[in-house]
Amino acid sequence: MNSQDYMQIALKEAQKAFEKDEVPVGAIIVDSQTGKVIAKAGNRSEHGENAFAHAELEAMKKACKKLKQNRLRDMDLYVTLEPCTMCAAAISLMRIRKVFFGATDEKGGAIVNGVKFFEAKTCHHRPEFESGILEEKCSEILKIFFRNKRQKKL
Amino acid sequence: MNSQDYMQIALKEAQKAFEKDEVPVGAIIVDSQTGKVIAKAGNRSEHGENAFAHAELEAMKKACKKLKQNRLRDMDLYVTLEPCTMCAAAISLMRIRKVFFGATDEKGGAIVNGVKFFEAKTCHHRPEFESGILEEKCSEILKIFFRNKRQKKL
Repeated sequence: MNSQDYMQIALKEAQKAFEKDEVPVGAIIVDSQTGKVIAKAGNRSEHGENAFAHAELEAMKKACKKLKQNRLRDMDLYVTLEPCTMCAAAISLMRIRKVFFGATDEKGGAIVNGVKFFEAKTCHHRPEFESGILEEKCSEILKIFFRNKRQKKL
Repeated sequence: MNSQDYMQIALKEAQKAFEKDEVPVGAIIVDSQTGKVIAKAGNRSEHGENAFAHAELEAMKKACKKLKQNRLRDMDLYVTLEPCTMCAAAISLMRIRKVFFGATDEKGGAIVNGVKFFEAKTCHHRPEFESGILEEKCSEILKIFFRNKRQKKL
């Protein structure tokens, strides 16, 4: 499988989040050595336990539980939207090898936007990253979600 | 109770973390309107479920669960060490009113050090903050912990 195939799986998680009226972002964790998908999750920050429940955090938590380990060395993370500051720092803490993301997020992103955390001097593990994987699809589902929200308010 | 009294409670959580061989950081959530302590937690990032389990995140998770709400408006957070980038961003996402912290953290802090997240343009809720509450005690317990670690390695 290539990075687009993996992102397609993350997009399915975003679609499931959409159907639960959550901001449609999806993430998966892949073992970079075997290519195996270890965990999948969608954003559930509105209807889940709390506002931290971003797709990336949920997927990393599930992967730790499944692998019974504290950190995720040699693992890759695919996410449909550029991680926010909390998630970017959590990804670094987890020792993720590489982050692949779809759409960029000028308002809240923290990898190529905002605090660009992986470049900060307080970032002690700097994952590799690649952006723009299935960017249009990843962005489109968010646009539709927010357009629907605005129309409901009218 | 004043801010030092609350920090003393957070310090007890740090002490409990110390006894579990965790980096000794403690945090509590206080309702700013009633003065009631809503949740307490110590860091458990080494022996807990995963490396995110910083005292601040654990305390906020517990408070959300207890109050059955998604965010923590009108709540204050007391923590013995300056929050890291992940925690600072999570505190903002949670809509915490004010953060009180003890020791500053030049290496990993994100409020007065590092990315100074509350000043970033991608920070959309900027909690108030106050540092230096029982600073010496908060810092001393960390120094002892790391000194012991180094001695064990010799």
